[in-house]
Order: sequence, then structure tokens, then C-alpha cells
Amino acid sequence: MTKYKLILDLDTGIDDALAIAYALADQDCELIGIIGSYGNVVVEQGVRNSLDLLSLLGAADVPVYQGLPCASTKKNFVVEPISAQIHGKNGVANLTLPHAPRQVAEQDGVDFLITAIHKYQHNLLFVPTGPLTNLAAAIKKDPEIVQLIGGVTFMGGALSVPGNVTPAAEANLHQDPAAANEVLRSKLPLTMVGLDVTTRTLLTKKETQTWRSLGTSAGSIYADLVDYYIDAYQVTSSHLAGCALHDPLAVAAALEPSLLQTFFLNMKVETVPPFEGRTIGDEKRINEPATTTQVALNVDKKRFVNKFMNRLTTLFADH
Amino acid sequence: MTKYKLILDLDTGIDDALAIAYALADQDCELIGIIGSYGNVVVEQGVRNSLDLLSLLGAADVPVYQGLPCASTKKNFVVEPISAQIHGKNGVANLTLPHAPRQVAEQDGVDFLITAIHKYQHNLLFVPTGPLTNLAAAIKKDPEIVQLIGGVTFMGGALSVPGNVTPAAEANLHQDPAAANEVLRSKLPLTMVGLDVTTRTLLTKKETQTWRSLGTSAGSIYADLVDYYIDAYQVTSSHLAGCALHDPLAVAAALEPSLLQTFFLNMKVETVPPFEGRTIGDEKRINEPATTTQVALNVDKKRFVNKFMNRLTTLFADH
Repeated sequence: MTKYKLILDLDTGIDDALAIAYALADQDCELIGIIGSYGNVVVEQGVRNSLDLLSLLGAADVPVYQGLPCASTKKNFVVEPISAQIHGKNGVANLTLPHAPRQVAEQDGVDFLITAIHKYQHNLLFVPTGPLTNLAAAIKKDPEIVQLIGGVTFMGGALSVPGNVTPAAEANLHQDPAAANEVLRSKLPLTMVGLDVTTRTLLTKKETQTWRSLGTSAGSIYADLVDYYIDAYQVTSSHLAGCALHDPLAVAAALEPSLLQTFFLNMKVETVPPFEGRTIGDEKRINEPATTTQVALNVDKKRFVNKFMNRLTTLFADH
Repeated sequence: MTKYKLILDLDTGIDDALAIAYALADQDCELIGIIGSYGNVVVEQGVRNSLDLLSLLGAADVPVYQGLPCASTKKNFVVEPISAQIHGKNGVANLTLPHAPRQVAEQDGVDFLITAIHKYQHNLLFVPTGPLTNLAAAIKKDPEIVQLIGGVTFMGGALSVPGNVTPAAEANLHQDPAAANEVLRSKLPLTMVGLDVTTRTLLTKKETQTWRSLGTSAGSIYADLVDYYIDAYQVTSSHLAGCALHDPLAVAAALEPSLLQTFFLNMKVETVPPFEGRTIGDEKRINEPATTTQVALNVDKKRFVNKFMNRLTTLFADH
């Protein structure tokens, strides 16, 4: 079996760090690059976090590209206080990660994505776990990629549950509703991994203790990262018994779709207050067959969390 | 096979009239009563419409009970202009139906429901297609009924598509969000037949012409009713190619659940603006197993519309 080529598009905070680890630990895919986005942190900080985490995990050869710095409809971006509360001001729990000596790649993130889609086509999987700004920009620059790519599995949105920044909107898609609307209304082979499922997959300090007790740098740092994240969740989402594994679930589902129960639906993203950022069925396309966009509504949480722990614990044991 | 006993709870406008016809045409159930509600019309008008339609269809023996006249949180009810536009000022396309000489039953609608649930228990199906005010009142008066009843299939709500009175809310549940919240958070065996599926099942003037050409009173009156409804839909929902079969779909699904694709979800109804009346997953119960409430997300529309036309055309041919 040919290995899938995987590209992640991350605003590297704590669950993005888990997504990187999950992707590196997978035997069936090759992580060929990370594109940096804004969201949990500013784009430059996200890129730096990705570089440092890749080095920590023995993957200093995976290139990191810088994507767009702000929403398609805005001129700048400022980190929300809630993001800093959940991920730390630097996105990585205010820890100082071991500094990786290398720098961001020269090629622009959007151009890297377009080039890679043309090169690998149906063998390429793309997993954005932040705003959909880079993907929308790539589609606008080269609409052909929609037909070429193997699949896009994004973490974002909320269909069957309320949002987390407003009752209507999830944080990633709320950052750039216009870009998200372009992506969701496109013919991309798209799977939405939203709060519908990510708030069903939880991690607790029992699991992070497993990593800490490995006695490795990676085990210790990832335990610190996730403990910070769990503490923040106890304040912001006290109804959940742990922290949500948003971003790594999207990676896992891209590689193993059977983890999810999905529903095909022609969707749109609302762009006007008070509903801006809401992911919802497009009532004007309700009677057209829905064939390219599916929404995850449930997840085999035990299977995912077991797999997640097995993979990450093995990876952290070696680093 | 024992026939199911069926109770409808209607704010009898035009699609409620279709629900009555569908129920009477079904061979597997016995319609043992209709409870009148407010919504498309005031409760007294709805009761009168139900009495007249039952007589028209040869079912003058089915009793009609009067339910509550307004929302659980309000002191009165006034018909919205949009309801009058869609159903006519009198709920039945401003037609003068042949007057049935009999009157509403003496027993209160809520008490009738409670009595019938105790009498028929798991053999009783309840289908409310208006506000959930009567059902919430019955649960409050006698909480035991939640465990006794065979099933409740209600028309209302919208999970995967926008609402029809606000972007968040469907009309029936928007009338009394507090009552709907009580019902959706209860342990009733509940199936939500919302805009998610009802806007996928459409009728056009081609079908009403079939009824008109029968040359019977019922055929002619129902053709006039639905033509009025289709004309209103062309103004209010021009993106749909016909009128939505909201209420009869709920009846059909109650009797034949396999018409629907459903998803189990612990739900709530928001009660505060701007989201009041929205049906959405309850994020605080997302990690409790969902076992009693299911939401219809798709429907076998061809099978339903064929069945609907066969049954109603046969019924109208005889009346």
C-alpha cells in the first residue's frame, strides 16, 4: 500500500501539538509538511512552535511553511484572551521548548499546498485544524485543486451542538467565516470534524501521568502541555471530564474514516452576526444530492483514545 | 397485529389537514382522538377545522379535544401574519368547509392525553405537529406517562438546517421554547421530524390536480387547500420546488420509522434570544449515552411521497 502524503495546517497550540505527534506516530502516512496559520497564536509563533515540536519528536526534516497571517476579510489578527487562557500566551502552555535551530521554509504555505496537491493528487490528505483561510486562498488561486486532492478533513464547526465562542460558532471557523463558507460550498471531498465529535474524545491527567512517567523529554513536555490544557478546560468547559482532543481526532479520522459516523450534507457557513461562523445545512441545496461534504456526528471514542494513547506513548518513549 | 392507537395534536392549518387524512387512510392505526392546539390558528379555530375535516373524510366519530390556548410562559396568543399568509386566516385557505354539526369533546385535551396513555400504554403513539405545550403540561401533571407511552414523533425543530421563523428556530418550537425544552430533555421515547427532513418531501400542483380530477368533495377541497399552500410557499420559500409535507411526514414516520434516517442525540431547546426555539444538542449531556431522543436527518422521500399520494388519493376518491 502506498503511504498517504499528509499536510497539516496548524495554528500550533496544545491540541495542534498532539496532532503533530499523532501524525508522526502513524505508520500509514508520511507527513510532508506543516503550514502555519493564525488562531491560537499569531502565525509566526505557530510556525516556531511547530518547528520546535517536530525537533523534539525527531522529525527535524519535516518542513514548516508560513501561511496567511489573518482572516481573508481582515487586515490583521490579534490573539483572543480566551486562546491565551487555553493554550498559554505562546501557544505551548508558556513553556520554553528546546529551540530548534532551523527556520521556516522559503516557499509560501498556500503555494506549497497547491504544488503538493498537483504532485500527489488523490494520494494527498490535507488536515487543517485552524481557520480555513489558507485552503480558501489556495482554491481561489487554483480552483483545479478541488478535483485533484484525495481528501480534506478539517477540525472546526459545530452542527449538532452549540459553538464554543458563541452559541452558534466554533472558534476556528469563527476566525474567518467567509473563507470557511467558500470551502464548505466547494466541491472538495470534505469531512467536518467539529465539536459534535471532538468534545466526545477526552483526555485526563491519568493519561498525561503515563507520559510523564516515561522519563523522556517528549513525555515530560507533552504531559506539561496537556496538564495546562486540562486545567484551562476545567475553567472554561467544566461540564467536560477532561480536555477535548480536537485536532488529533481530525488527523486520526483523515487516516481512518471508520472512526467516525458521518452524515452527508450540503453546508454553508453564516457570515453575518449574530450567527457568523455557524456551520449549517444550506437550505437552498437541501434537495440536491449531498455527495462531497460529510459531517461527523459520532465517533468510536474508545477505539480512538486507545489508539491515540498507544501511538503517542510509544513515540514519546523514544524521544 | 394489534393496531396502534394514534393521537394527533394539531394546530389545524393545511399540512395538519394532510396529517389527518394520512392518519385516517392508514390501515395499521386507529386514530382515537385529536387534541387542538394554537399556532397556525387560535385553538378554537383549529378545533373547528379538525371537526369539519374529519366529517369531510367520513370520520365524524373521532373525537376532538381542546388543548391549551397559548404558550406555557404567556397569557395569550395572537396568530402571526406569516401563519395567516401560509394557511389562510382561518387555517384552511380561507375556504368555508362543510360545517360538521358536532362540537368539541368535553374532556380537556391534556387530561385526555394522560388518560389515553394510561389506558393504551406502549400501544399508543402521539404525534404533535404544533407547539409542544400540551405534551409538556401532561408531563408536568403526570410525570409517569413518560415511561408508559409507546412513542412520540413530533413535527418541529431544525438541527442540520436553519429555522423558518429565525435562522435558529422552527415555527412550532419557537411558539413555546420552554415547553419544548421540557419535552426534549425528558426521557420520552422521542423522534424529532424537523425541517431537516420535511423540507425534503415536497408536493406540487401536479399531485393536487390528481385529487381535483377525482370529482369528489374531499378531492376538490384538499386540492384547493394545498394549491393555496403551494402558492404561499412560492412566496415564502421560493428555493423549494413545492410545499413541504411537514405534518403528514411526522404521522407517516410514527407509523413506519424506517422512512427516516435518525441520529440519537441528547437535546435541549434554547429559551433566550436570539437563539430561542433552537433545537440543539445539549453540550452538558454530550458524553451521556443518548438513548431516548432521536433526530431525523434524512428521509426516503420517494417512498414517502408515493405512499402519501396512494393513500390520500384512495381516501379522497371515496369522499
